[in-house]
Amino acid sequence: MSSAVEESAGTRSTLVVTAHAGDFVWRAGGAIALAASRGQQVTIACLTFGERGESARAWREGRSLEEIKAVRRAEAEEAASVLGATVRFFDAGDYPLVARPELVDDLVGLYREVQPDVVLTHPLEDPYNVDHPAAARMALDARVLAQAAGYPAAGEPLGAPPVFFFEPHQPEMSGFRPEVLLDITEVFDTKRAAMECLAAQQHLWDYYTDLATRRGVQLRRNAGPNLGLASTTYGEAYMRPYPQVTGELA
Amino acid sequence: MSSAVEESAGTRSTLVVTAHAGDFVWRAGGAIALAASRGQQVTIACLTFGERGESARAWREGRSLEEIKAVRRAEAEEAASVLGATVRFFDAGDYPLVARPELVDDLVGLYREVQPDVVLTHPLEDPYNVDHPAAARMALDARVLAQAAGYPAAGEPLGAPPVFFFEPHQPEMSGFRPEVLLDITEVFDTKRAAMECLAAQQHLWDYYTDLATRRGVQLRRNAGPNLGLASTTYGEAYMRPYPQVTGELA
Amino acid sequence: MSSAVEESAGTRSTLVVTAHAGDFVWRAGGAIALAASRGQQVTIACLTFGERGESARAWREGRSLEEIKAVRRAEAEEAASVLGATVRFFDAGDYPLVARPELVDDLVGLYREVQPDVVLTHPLEDPYNVDHPAAARMALDARVLAQAAGYPAAGEPLGAPPVFFFEPHQPEMSGFRPEVLLDITEVFDTKRAAMECLAAQQHLWDYYTDLATRRGVQLRRNAGPNLGLASTTYGEAYMRPYPQVTGELA
Amino acid sequence: MSSAVEESAGTRSTLVVTAHAGDFVWRAGGAIALAASRGQQVTIACLTFGERGESARAWREGRSLEEIKAVRRAEAEEAASVLGATVRFFDAGDYPLVARPELVDDLVGLYREVQPDVVLTHPLEDPYNVDHPAAARMALDARVLAQAAGYPAAGEPLGAPPVFFFEPHQPEMSGFRPEVLLDITEVFDTKRAAMECLAAQQHLWDYYTDLATRRGVQLRRNAGPNLGLASTTYGEAYMRPYPQVTGELA
Amino acid sequence: MSSAVEESAGTRSTLVVTAHAGDFVWRAGGAIALAASRGQQVTIACLTFGERGESARAWREGRSLEEIKAVRRAEAEEAASVLGATVRFFDAGDYPLVARPELVDDLVGLYREVQPDVVLTHPLEDPYNVDHPAAARMALDARVLAQAAGYPAAGEPLGAPPVFFFEPHQPEMSGFRPEVLLDITEVFDTKRAAMECLAAQQHLWDYYTDLATRRGVQLRRNAGPNLGLASTTYGEAYMRPYPQVTGELA
Amino acid sequence: MSSAVEESAGTRSTLVVTAHAGDFVWRAGGAIALAASRGQQVTIACLTFGERGESARAWREGRSLEEIKAVRRAEAEEAASVLGATVRFFDAGDYPLVARPELVDDLVGLYREVQPDVVLTHPLEDPYNVDHPAAARMALDARVLAQAAGYPAAGEPLGAPPVFFFEPHQPEMSGFRPEVLLDITEVFDTKRAAMECLAAQQHLWDYYTDLATRRGVQLRRNAGPNLGLASTTYGEAYMRPYPQVTGELA
Repeated sequence: MSSAVEESAGTRSTLVVTAHAGDFVWRAGGAIALAASRGQQVTIACLTFGERGESARAWREGRSLEEIKAVRRAEAEEAASVLGATVRFFDAGDYPLVARPELVDDLVGLYREVQPDVVLTHPLEDPYNVDHPAAARMALDARVLAQAAGYPAAGEPLGAPPVFFFEPHQPEMSGFRPEVLLDITEVFDTKRAAMECLAAQQHLWDYYTDLATRRGVQLRRNAGPNLGLASTTYGEAYMRPYPQVTGELA
Repeated sequence: MSSAVEESAGTRSTLVVTAHAGDFVWRAGGAIALAASRGQQVTIACLTFGERGESARAWREGRSLEEIKAVRRAEAEEAASVLGATVRFFDAGDYPLVARPELVDDLVGLYREVQPDVVLTHPLEDPYNVDHPAAARMALDARVLAQAAGYPAAGEPLGAPPVFFFEPHQPEMSGFRPEVLLDITEVFDTKRAAMECLAAQQHLWDYYTDLATRRGVQLRRNAGPNLGLASTTYGEAYMRPYPQVTGELA
Repeated sequence: MSSAVEESAGTRSTLVVTAHAGDFVWRAGGAIALAASRGQQVTIACLTFGERGESARAWREGRSLEEIKAVRRAEAEEAASVLGATVRFFDAGDYPLVARPELVDDLVGLYREVQPDVVLTHPLEDPYNVDHPAAARMALDARVLAQAAGYPAAGEPLGAPPVFFFEPHQPEMSGFRPEVLLDITEVFDTKRAAMECLAAQQHLWDYYTDLATRRGVQLRRNAGPNLGLASTTYGEAYMRPYPQVTGELA
Repeated sequence: MSSAVEESAGTRSTLVVTAHAGDFVWRAGGAIALAASRGQQVTIACLTFGERGESARAWREGRSLEEIKAVRRAEAEEAASVLGATVRFFDAGDYPLVARPELVDDLVGLYREVQPDVVLTHPLEDPYNVDHPAAARMALDARVLAQAAGYPAAGEPLGAPPVFFFEPHQPEMSGFRPEVLLDITEVFDTKRAAMECLAAQQHLWDYYTDLATRRGVQLRRNAGPNLGLASTTYGEAYMRPYPQVTGELA
Repeated sequence: MSSAVEESAGTRSTLVVTAHAGDFVWRAGGAIALAASRGQQVTIACLTFGERGESARAWREGRSLEEIKAVRRAEAEEAASVLGATVRFFDAGDYPLVARPELVDDLVGLYREVQPDVVLTHPLEDPYNVDHPAAARMALDARVLAQAAGYPAAGEPLGAPPVFFFEPHQPEMSGFRPEVLLDITEVFDTKRAAMECLAAQQHLWDYYTDLATRRGVQLRRNAGPNLGLASTTYGEAYMRPYPQVTGELA
Repeated sequence: MSSAVEESAGTRSTLVVTAHAGDFVWRAGGAIALAASRGQQVTIACLTFGERGESARAWREGRSLEEIKAVRRAEAEEAASVLGATVRFFDAGDYPLVARPELVDDLVGLYREVQPDVVLTHPLEDPYNVDHPAAARMALDARVLAQAAGYPAAGEPLGAPPVFFFEPHQPEMSGFRPEVLLDITEVFDTKRAAMECLAAQQHLWDYYTDLATRRGVQLRRNAGPNLGLASTTYGEAYMRPYPQVTGELA
């Protein structure tokens, strides 16, 4: 298995499906930077700009809806660029982001276009946010539909790429249990730089740096002794809704 | 991470902790053969011979306890040899196998001796067998104790090797959800040969071949399209009680 | 914390979101009467009259839809008056009550208007009734939306009032575990009087009196010995989907 | 209870609600054949033909949508006839099958028409298929609505027939735990004959024969010793979302 | 299957394993009376008299340990006699009842002696009582051990009789979900008479009558319309840790 | 209820049951300091010194067992003194701490002596530590036994004090979901000072300060807007295994 994986490594493709413009930075910035640093293609689907639900300060400052969307778009594009990824905006309207067939159909099209080897999205549960589960539900449904030869969309039917749920803001309240700890130490500076593109949420820069440190501590605690990890290790946590397929237990 | 793993690959060590003499064949024979075929060391701890609980036919034929233990030992040694592994018998008495401090202490000693990079054992739940959870509980406890510098046993403190629970006989009734699907196609003939060493349980040879086929079907269903899997794929299923530590999402 | 709570006690506001006209009486009548008896404002949102799903006798007697709605409205208003609360009817149509954006938007408006300190609603699971989970889902979603500065509705953004799920008719089948036992002894007579306003469901008067007694027994069983509880204690059970915030463990 | 059951046995009615044309054969063919063999009426609701999601080969062969639907319909009718049941096609469109009020209303009508004593449908969870949970959700909702005297549909209000979830393709990944093991030995040949009507899915004939064998092994393992089971027993597994009502513990 | 069951009905045997002398009356009195009324043999294993943990009034009245045990024994024998069953006392000491191999071995002996077709015991979880889970654990373990041909106890190896967990005092806090609702209407007077043998716990007579009524309401709510249930139905609720084996879905 | 609580506030008693000498500082130091600051009595039961399992550095430095125990005892006493609490050492031996009747009996005695109004202990699950669940199990069992009038220990039978599980080191892996968020802002400096008494674990000082900050963020996120919380709020998280008993929903 690992050999097959290595052969196609040069063309590997990752698809990240998120509800709001900033989500991919805080929650999966390390995984994105890591993939990009290895020459892989990373595409981020932002279903909305987070213009209503995640822009409280801008609203209190009296900005208009269009201004806010423009700012959020610009920030997200800059952060994606820092990480080495491309963003697609769907402008589907947030708070609430409502699951609907047309949007799922658009996502099927994107799946068939980018043919991802790996899919990242929100977990299915988040009692503090109505948009995250809606985005995740659509991401999962579109992935299944894109696999069907009979689904009427351009492009080849999809394989069955593994899915990873990234960490929500309040993990324990969202049924989130770290099932995969990803070592992002070598790209953490890039993730931090991408976070700093999101000027309006400066209070989160340190919050997510602390989280990366804590996940790094857990990572070391769960790793064997011979892995030669740096004393400061940064990590990101993920869940797997589908089983891992592997050629070696490790 | 992967590079560190590769460096030490020549000396990797796997420890399999089981309740009865035959368990390692049916449930983890593929993983064992795979590791051994790559030059890794595999040690199997059989806490009992399964002399009372898993030898119904022999009892009905009127064999004595000592005869049964001798037969089971011989079969297990032969099967282990076919797979490329070494067995240690603890002769702790089965049905019931009772968890006790001395046995846990013996296991701590074994952990420190073989310094496993990977640990395989039973899941913690099995409503059809009282010994399997007892063995698993002791395997997990000993692994934690062996990590403590202050634990009074010979050898160096252990790291934190990943643990995999192999599949019980009635998976759905034991809360077993396949979290890892291991491709054992290349060693399946070896696993079959090891199964055939267990003469008294001939009815299970086909049963576990069917299971390997079914897990193989699931494996293909959960793998991406480019993995070049054989049309007949054999698999084994595992659970992970601890998070996977990795340098790449795949 | 307790001091802050006390300061604003005179103006505390409770919002109860229910599917059908009678629900608030059986399930939360004690909590409503208790809050009202302390001078607090209680607003009940009845999304439907329960005209189709909870009026079997009236249908068998040949009443028309409009007649049934009128009777249910009158009964609910009388029961609310007995408890000291105000009802708002949404007339959204029951059996099935279908979650829809306009209804959620109406609820956001109500949240912003009454600015609740406490929210009561159905639990999210009820295999015997399709309307209860729909009402709960909308109540929770509207509460989250109402908190966003960017949500286009009149009034100030909401804080994060605690939510309590009241007890469904078949608690064990609906995943209901009592997490909060509320002592309603001092207002139980009022609750009984409110129940008796619901003439068509006379068979439930004693049923829910028995339930209050049983929850009272549990309440005493879970309380410390010095609480000076009456020998007949009446209780209501609730779940908390969000963590309790407190200044003291008790 | 058993006496009441026996009295009405001659007129018992079973309703099977499925997403795609082939589902009833693989998953519930034994239960259907068993009921039919006892002179009971069995009605199968096929919400779609599985024309897009479960006809990969036909699409790869270049068939048109209408051709595929016609083939699937013919196969399903033939299989139902072999089993002794009647099929109703709803042609609601698959992949995705979207839950919608009109379809639920149609199902309410069917419930009131056939007045089932037993209902079979998919489980509510299936991460590999978006249509199965949608069908199950509608089957359950319609069953509850059909019980309400006030629901505006022809026919008498329904009682509360027990519901059984049949086994999904990947049981462990769908939260499926066998709660009922049905002995289908006496009709297994009929089930096999019905499977062989589904020519395009020949690779599943043996797969589901193996499954029936494995469920039969489990059935014997969970049955008392005096049941006189055949040495080859075939079984089907089911879950019960509602409690069993009985006059005897057995 | 049903035919096999009927054939052996005259000799059916039920084993009830309980922690304390009174448990079988409150929790399973209906099932016991029902089996006995059909000419079946019912054996109750009381592991302790409940002399310390369930005799608060007697201790407050200054009775000695031996007096209390004698009273509890006499009451239990009288209640069993009313129900039509036989009691075996193990006098293993309560509060805490500690699981130990000798006691499990005694239970294996009893299983082999009475060869039960049905087993009733406590559920495995009860946060209000340490003895109930201990009794249940031993009852389940002994049942598995008694099935092994190699287990050194007199009598024939056991089959695999179904197990039912009866209802604990605080069901929702003990993870108890009614999976089986048993109609005990025809023997309820007998159960009430047996309850009245337990003079020291008079406050529970009405409590458990109310529970039987409530479970009866649930039973009617979950039964089909043609079952001809009495308007006052009494019920007892049970869980099944093992799958039901059946020849008919009903 | 609140009035009864206030009356006896001067004499309220808290009992903290922990496995190792340092646990109470990291996990419950805020709750302890808060109770003590209000004039309440707090007693900490340290079942072991953590001499083997939580003293890795000392062992690597070549200290003897007795030296290590002495150091840990001194540190714990100093930290308890800073917090305003009293420690009782049981010296039961750690890694593994084995549950045993004598130790439970000692705890029953302590319960009856200090008559706690509140009990704090570890959660029942911790896959990284075998001692924590053992301590929690004994703490819960002893609490139940101490309530029985018939249990042979000095002192009056206990009431039913509420229990709180404090947060484990790896909460998500231990099934820990914050159910109670305690505001410890006003005593956080005291908690920090107590942490600094534990010289050997300096790396944890900041780790647990970060955790308190994060729990404070969550606390604000879950609190209503009028609570007047400080912009830097420190929190501790707890679970409740028993329902909250209250006179007001808040």
